[in-house]
Amino acid sequence: MAKKIILDCDPGHDDAVAILLAVGNPNIDLIGVTTVGGNQSLDKVTYNARAVLEKAHATDIPVHAGCDRPIVRKQEVAASIHGETGLDGVELPEPTRPLEQGHAVNWIIDTIMNNEPGTITLVPTGPLTNIAMAVRMEPRIVERVKEVVLMGGGYHVGNWSAVAEFNIKVDPEAAHIVFNEAWPITMVGLDLTHQAMCTPAVQKRIEGVGTDLAMFVSGLMDFFRKTYQDNQDFIDPPVHDPCTVAYLIDPSVVKTRRCPVDIEIHGELTLGMTVADLRGPEPSAEECHTQVATKLDFDKFWDLVTEAIRAIG
Amino acid sequence: MAKKIILDCDPGHDDAVAILLAVGNPNIDLIGVTTVGGNQSLDKVTYNARAVLEKAHATDIPVHAGCDRPIVRKQEVAASIHGETGLDGVELPEPTRPLEQGHAVNWIIDTIMNNEPGTITLVPTGPLTNIAMAVRMEPRIVERVKEVVLMGGGYHVGNWSAVAEFNIKVDPEAAHIVFNEAWPITMVGLDLTHQAMCTPAVQKRIEGVGTDLAMFVSGLMDFFRKTYQDNQDFIDPPVHDPCTVAYLIDPSVVKTRRCPVDIEIHGELTLGMTVADLRGPEPSAEECHTQVATKLDFDKFWDLVTEAIRAIG
Amino acid sequence: MAKKIILDCDPGHDDAVAILLAVGNPNIDLIGVTTVGGNQSLDKVTYNARAVLEKAHATDIPVHAGCDRPIVRKQEVAASIHGETGLDGVELPEPTRPLEQGHAVNWIIDTIMNNEPGTITLVPTGPLTNIAMAVRMEPRIVERVKEVVLMGGGYHVGNWSAVAEFNIKVDPEAAHIVFNEAWPITMVGLDLTHQAMCTPAVQKRIEGVGTDLAMFVSGLMDFFRKTYQDNQDFIDPPVHDPCTVAYLIDPSVVKTRRCPVDIEIHGELTLGMTVADLRGPEPSAEECHTQVATKLDFDKFWDLVTEAIRAIG
Amino acid sequence: MAKKIILDCDPGHDDAVAILLAVGNPNIDLIGVTTVGGNQSLDKVTYNARAVLEKAHATDIPVHAGCDRPIVRKQEVAASIHGETGLDGVELPEPTRPLEQGHAVNWIIDTIMNNEPGTITLVPTGPLTNIAMAVRMEPRIVERVKEVVLMGGGYHVGNWSAVAEFNIKVDPEAAHIVFNEAWPITMVGLDLTHQAMCTPAVQKRIEGVGTDLAMFVSGLMDFFRKTYQDNQDFIDPPVHDPCTVAYLIDPSVVKTRRCPVDIEIHGELTLGMTVADLRGPEPSAEECHTQVATKLDFDKFWDLVTEAIRAIG
Ligand SMILES: [Ca+2]
Ligand SMILES: [Ca+2]
Ligand SMILES: [Ca+2]
Ligand SMILES: [Ca+2]
Repeated sequence: MAKKIILDCDPGHDDAVAILLAVGNPNIDLIGVTTVGGNQSLDKVTYNARAVLEKAHATDIPVHAGCDRPIVRKQEVAASIHGETGLDGVELPEPTRPLEQGHAVNWIIDTIMNNEPGTITLVPTGPLTNIAMAVRMEPRIVERVKEVVLMGGGYHVGNWSAVAEFNIKVDPEAAHIVFNEAWPITMVGLDLTHQAMCTPAVQKRIEGVGTDLAMFVSGLMDFFRKTYQDNQDFIDPPVHDPCTVAYLIDPSVVKTRRCPVDIEIHGELTLGMTVADLRGPEPSAEECHTQVATKLDFDKFWDLVTEAIRAIG
Repeated sequence: MAKKIILDCDPGHDDAVAILLAVGNPNIDLIGVTTVGGNQSLDKVTYNARAVLEKAHATDIPVHAGCDRPIVRKQEVAASIHGETGLDGVELPEPTRPLEQGHAVNWIIDTIMNNEPGTITLVPTGPLTNIAMAVRMEPRIVERVKEVVLMGGGYHVGNWSAVAEFNIKVDPEAAHIVFNEAWPITMVGLDLTHQAMCTPAVQKRIEGVGTDLAMFVSGLMDFFRKTYQDNQDFIDPPVHDPCTVAYLIDPSVVKTRRCPVDIEIHGELTLGMTVADLRGPEPSAEECHTQVATKLDFDKFWDLVTEAIRAIG
Repeated sequence: MAKKIILDCDPGHDDAVAILLAVGNPNIDLIGVTTVGGNQSLDKVTYNARAVLEKAHATDIPVHAGCDRPIVRKQEVAASIHGETGLDGVELPEPTRPLEQGHAVNWIIDTIMNNEPGTITLVPTGPLTNIAMAVRMEPRIVERVKEVVLMGGGYHVGNWSAVAEFNIKVDPEAAHIVFNEAWPITMVGLDLTHQAMCTPAVQKRIEGVGTDLAMFVSGLMDFFRKTYQDNQDFIDPPVHDPCTVAYLIDPSVVKTRRCPVDIEIHGELTLGMTVADLRGPEPSAEECHTQVATKLDFDKFWDLVTEAIRAIG
Repeated sequence: MAKKIILDCDPGHDDAVAILLAVGNPNIDLIGVTTVGGNQSLDKVTYNARAVLEKAHATDIPVHAGCDRPIVRKQEVAASIHGETGLDGVELPEPTRPLEQGHAVNWIIDTIMNNEPGTITLVPTGPLTNIAMAVRMEPRIVERVKEVVLMGGGYHVGNWSAVAEFNIKVDPEAAHIVFNEAWPITMVGLDLTHQAMCTPAVQKRIEGVGTDLAMFVSGLMDFFRKTYQDNQDFIDPPVHDPCTVAYLIDPSVVKTRRCPVDIEIHGELTLGMTVADLRGPEPSAEECHTQVATKLDFDKFWDLVTEAIRAIG
């Protein structure tokens, strides 16, 4: 049976690929997309989410807009990486399906409370603002959620500072809230996603699918490559967010290591660091509710992405 | 015309008196009570709020329960001051009106958005968790709210540490959120409320009203006096929370001084301090959206409280 | 018998007056002046100290230069208050006595260790860098020093931020070190020194002494008044530093209140705040090694200053 | 020509091995040992340093005692690793050479200032308190020191917390001071020293030297192995401190990577972390004065140690 997921995102070039993977893979039942201010302002990323779903012929999927800024800190967007629109580099279709009325936080709570316990997986690929707000509004969601598989952080790698990643650093208090609840968390951080490079060979394979959607993705990757080259000293862009969905489709794509993870919310050089304690032997699932992604099966990952693009048509 | 207020509270002995003052004074239209974990757990203070309204024959007023814990920090209650129930020292009536279904945060948002702009005053007398959550869920409430008149903090006085007050210190991030929004804020802090002592003479006047409710209030004050003597080196208990309502009834009861106020969320000795900048001349309302309460008209204040108790009957 | 003091200062207009009061009053035995980077760079304030002693015909008093910057933080000077030289507004005589060779920190340690226990009083009127360094180099000075009477901080007043004073804020870690040692500390903070205004009447009295030195002091006050008017919204300048010496000459000039004081070294809004715990009854000297200055006898204070200027001739 | 080094240490089992390597290797001219409170109290580690030099027949080397506690924080020792004496597990000879009179900080300053610029290398293998104090007392040592090669920190590994190492964590402000001065720093951290395991095979080789000193070292390793097994989940003990000396003897023993390193002094989970910025290409020595040790040549390292033990006789 397909896994029911809520994708809480801030598209964002890699969020867009995550949406496509979730839409196009038969093992995932994307029951809704929620949006959060992150890579760009809430208005822009919400529009982008709807446009990407339109592009993917997935107008059955509702989009709810959530929080427009971090809980405590001033907002900081990633225009240097994702451009002024948040999805610079491609032409977006006009979304035909209207935005849903309810607030994402309420919709997340209601969806979890109205589904059977243990059936809904949360997949945050932006700042954790919505998820943190939801758990403070309705603490009972913690025991009802199946698991949280999020893109963010890094146990040995940073991008928005020497030791912090964008999604966590821009709303560290939200991340602190989420990581300190007892639900199972898989942190798919930069340690993993910097292995998910869209190399020219990978991009050629995607283009080989031959559809309009495939060329759309290739256009996204062109822009993404350029900003990563200009701003982060990369050769190819790391396509972070779909790694979460890939792990849910097939856990063998992403190796993990169980360890305590907590969020630094007071440091000056380390603000928003996902502090992982890798000392000693690996704890059991009973001892430790958090795990970090360590090793990507590069080929399997890009197979999944390419297949999903092909499946959407 | 009576002022429409939402009382967001954590009863609490002094919250109870604030409820009674709001119910019993004709210049206040108490359109709803919301509750927040604070002096005691959410369940207890919510029950207390309903029971106090029952006691005040105010079953027309809806009660919505809100957040059960601070946004970021671990919960800390004030059992040393308010006892195990949060209203120790009196017998509470069984509430006849059921608790409302919706979450306080949503109800606050909906009420503000559905009333005319500039008509609703927020009166928080507990931790600012609900108000902070509401403003993050729906930022437009900031410009629609008439004003925020809150009990909390102190520019020169602390009680939960040398320089911080309970309501602010237990959820400093919430306070930081609330004080950094542009709405007009009147901080009725310890500088003011430590002037609102329930002296034996005051208590005798209240008892003189001669009603069951008056004896109920006197019972609250007996317990409150004892915990304040035992734990805070006071002779008489300072009855903090109704000072906010008294100020709204008659601004001449509470003198104020306009000054910037912000909340320390990183200090070790100063966590949760309401940092007021009193240097230089007093700024104008255009320059500064925050003001602090400085001087209480003791007689007028207790006149208002006694009158309200009498009016309720 | 005159009290032996070491004046550890950063002249600075008010430090200059402190030097003159210590030199000119018979109850003070100024055994040495040490300097620390503060109001201006170490080189400048050291020159100023020597020049002021020259002006006071006090070439018997050795000057040792100390630390040129705070222990942890980057240096920040008070040029807006004391000008580019640190003593702008007057002409300084060329010092005839050379600067001593040894480092102030070593000289302070050696002087304390070579004098009888309980005979040396430390009077810091600049950042506490030298004193902190000395106590870390030689912890035994704590029990040998008679007392520490310092200008700095404020329990309800700030000048370099809403709640912090310059001397403490620019080297908060040094202040943290000094306040956490067990020696008797009298904190003469802004609460007190903002009562030590050099009014026009006071300045006229000083000028009435009729000496070259009196006119020198008046010149200092002219400049000091102007920068305080321009930068701190004052009418007359508060002459902070000599209040310490005045208290040592005659304790009745300065009322004090015993209370715990500690230094905030992590806060964002409160960095360098001298956090005084004024709750509850005043502790005894056995319970509490710190006290704060509360009330100045204005007339006595300026009598002492004027007399000292006259006595120097 | 042999390199002149000052070994600033807190023996400590691995400090003892560092002393022996420095004494026994002809390329090192150990001009003095200074001690600092760290693994144990200053008195104990100072005695240990003298006793180890006695054991190594190196009574020509002066020992100066330095600071007995961290600059700002309360002292914390590593008795769980080094025992009550700091060198538990072996019998120490009575030192014949008396402790020098001067304070380590003054001796370090004087030695650097009295030698030719660029001739003295500082090798701290304990908390950085003495070095930090020295540079604040005499800033000119920065440009006169040849380089600083220290044991401490870790860019991806912690031992005293998830992300901090003992030497840095117990006096983070001292480390912050040292790392923010412009001298060339090589940080030999846990990333490197956890490769310097004293395996049974290594220990057997050392024992094979056949001297009393070799058995002394073996005794140290027995105790060290046991505490590392009991407290840190290690099989063999990592012999941290001599890696610094080995690098100075032969840089090919330790590979390094140049990168900015700064010290977190405000974090809650990250206090004392050596925050290394490994993003982007490796900077040049002109761009960056810090480098971190990455890869140990295990065989060469233990060859050097074994040879030194043999050479001492
Ligand atoms: Ca994203
Ligand atoms: Ca309350
Ligand atoms: Ca001064
Ligand atoms: Ca060591």
